[in-house]
Amino acid sequence: MEKNALLAERNRGFFRAKKLLVLNVVSSPGSGKTTFIRETAAQLGAKLRVGVIVGDLATDNDAARLRTAGIPVIQITTGTVCHLDADMVSKAAAQLDLDKLDVLVIENVGNLVCPADYDLGEDLRVVLLSTTEGEDKPLKYPPMFHSAHVAVITKGDLAAPAGFNREQALANLHRVSHHAEVFELSAKTGDGMKAWLDFLLKQRGKTGK
Amino acid sequence: MEKNALLAERNRGFFRAKKLLVLNVVSSPGSGKTTFIRETAAQLGAKLRVGVIVGDLATDNDAARLRTAGIPVIQITTGTVCHLDADMVSKAAAQLDLDKLDVLVIENVGNLVCPADYDLGEDLRVVLLSTTEGEDKPLKYPPMFHSAHVAVITKGDLAAPAGFNREQALANLHRVSHHAEVFELSAKTGDGMKAWLDFLLKQRGKTGK
Repeated sequence: MEKNALLAERNRGFFRAKKLLVLNVVSSPGSGKTTFIRETAAQLGAKLRVGVIVGDLATDNDAARLRTAGIPVIQITTGTVCHLDADMVSKAAAQLDLDKLDVLVIENVGNLVCPADYDLGEDLRVVLLSTTEGEDKPLKYPPMFHSAHVAVITKGDLAAPAGFNREQALANLHRVSHHAEVFELSAKTGDGMKAWLDFLLKQRGKTGK
Repeated sequence: MEKNALLAERNRGFFRAKKLLVLNVVSSPGSGKTTFIRETAAQLGAKLRVGVIVGDLATDNDAARLRTAGIPVIQITTGTVCHLDADMVSKAAAQLDLDKLDVLVIENVGNLVCPADYDLGEDLRVVLLSTTEGEDKPLKYPPMFHSAHVAVITKGDLAAPAGFNREQALANLHRVSHHAEVFELSAKTGDGMKAWLDFLLKQRGKTGK
């Protein structure tokens, strides 16, 4: 763990030198990480070039989905490990042409516990909460939500059929991660994507390229 | 881990002596474990008495939901640990009046990775997959799905709005857990619950009370 903290800082320095904005995207399995990242990359495409590192225990399904959309992507398969670590990310990043990228998105293993403890060297940790998962997830997985800089409520298109209580979810989010920027969107319909993309463009400006 | 295997066998012997049918219910966060268990307990109520041990990192929200429905329940909070273990279950079970129960349901921490490696002494491991999570979860989390005796597809009422591909999900399930019994239901509407309850009654018969 201490070794990971050191390697994560090395990653952070490396990525800064490359003037990359680096996101670590975490969530439950099935919260819509891949669709969210695919739409983010596609819609940013005209302004910023996005590459992706994606982690799963098994399969390269997610990499295939992103590659089909024309996004440079490296798949990490972890076997039985429930999170990515800084060393895995460093090795995967070496396989991307980072000089051609502005934003590097790391899609972590779907898990609301283990990835909380592993800094990857990201600029922003982005936690997703889908409207179908229930409003109490921030309270039940506090380390993950507390450690996030940004929280994104996904699957807005399913909020009504799922009976999602938006006010309660926002109250729970703010209770655990009162510092986090919150976005509400549907990557499927595009609703709410603009505010998120504008935020990324602004954050990207800070990396100074 | 080896110590857990021994304690799990001790639990198994203890539960057998008490003629309990013991289920270990695992899934992603937000797949609907608590609603599924609450409805199972309520609908079995006339024939079998159900008690619950529920694990979360934090909060006793789930225990409160079950207690309100009149179900005997013990909450375990794990802090930062991503799974229950046999020792936690043994201590929690000692707080229930097991002689008054026929079925003990253990609701594990919402996680598709860590709980796979921890036998709790259960008779049946039951993995839930909700229609809103995507069809590829069995392929992406093979140890968990492979280790399950039963797979339950939940949130059937959201299958249509979520665009759930049932055939693909079943094919993926059978590929990883070809031995598992599969049920498809909505605990919210009650659709499909009967087959699951009949299965439990039959399994309960095997424990010999």
